[in-house]
Amino acid sequence: MGLDEQQNPGITGLMRFRPETAEPLNALAEVLLRAPHSMSPGERELIAAYVSGRNECEFCCTSHSLFAAAQLDQGMTLVQQVRADPDSAPISSKLKALLRIAGAVQQSGRAVTAEMVESAREQGATDIEIHDTVLIAAAFCMFNRYVDGLGTWAPESPDGYGDSVRRIVEHGYGV
Amino acid sequence: MGLDEQQNPGITGLMRFRPETAEPLNALAEVLLRAPHSMSPGERELIAAYVSGRNECEFCCTSHSLFAAAQLDQGMTLVQQVRADPDSAPISSKLKALLRIAGAVQQSGRAVTAEMVESAREQGATDIEIHDTVLIAAAFCMFNRYVDGLGTWAPESPDGYGDSVRRIVEHGYGV
Repeated sequence: MGLDEQQNPGITGLMRFRPETAEPLNALAEVLLRAPHSMSPGERELIAAYVSGRNECEFCCTSHSLFAAAQLDQGMTLVQQVRADPDSAPISSKLKALLRIAGAVQQSGRAVTAEMVESAREQGATDIEIHDTVLIAAAFCMFNRYVDGLGTWAPESPDGYGDSVRRIVEHGYGV
Repeated sequence: MGLDEQQNPGITGLMRFRPETAEPLNALAEVLLRAPHSMSPGERELIAAYVSGRNECEFCCTSHSLFAAAQLDQGMTLVQQVRADPDSAPISSKLKALLRIAGAVQQSGRAVTAEMVESAREQGATDIEIHDTVLIAAAFCMFNRYVDGLGTWAPESPDGYGDSVRRIVEHGYGV
């Protein structure tokens, strides 16, 4: 089946088209978003949704917002607050500082300042948390470009994401 | 050893700091840049160097320019011509069309137009070549942000890249 004829939306169609690259991409998502960590899967998916929103990637932003909401006590309300303005959202100062770093990475790696990193450390962020925040944000600058650069389609409503939320939350990124 | 105390430059220091993420990142680089393909490793490294230059990532641009030059008959002269202006460089019309797509991806996935993809197809590009060009460009938007967002250091001259060129050309990305 040709690149333009995928029946599955977004990255799921691309992964069926090219399973050789799907494997390391899924492995990367799994270790960044779901492996045992001091930040919960919900918090890490929140970074992914935030960056995807800033890159205006509809498929990634909707799907990772759903994955974040399903794994956070405050659900989609919190996801929408964070996407609109992390600084005023009811999240920890540490997560706010990490989201400021993620927002800079979305623009450019060179937009991250020593002050941003120092501020995250002052709020208690560890080296691993800073490292993974930068890499999650950078990875979604890749996933977003991949999904939009190849002109994939996105479902018209969140309902169209089918059982992908349950699948990701229960089984992860297929590694 | 802390995140800021890496003795190895660029991504090599980050990969020692966090081997769990290094594994899928190396696997992705290997399949995109070195696995058997209708585009040579030199051509694929050229796309990586071109995008890294546009993202102004010194470490990635210098290293992948060296990897491309080592695997192209015309060496660093061609790499520099392509980095300066792909359209006037002595490369195939197909590679020019693919580099235009890569340049769009560097800006945003949504900057890739149907005309750019159609033009690449008219010059003989296959679906896999178009797919992999988009994903290589997107992946370097990740690698570049990762390397610069964490404030890694780069050697002062190409000599400082040591034997990494021989290692990559002979052994690949360590998978």
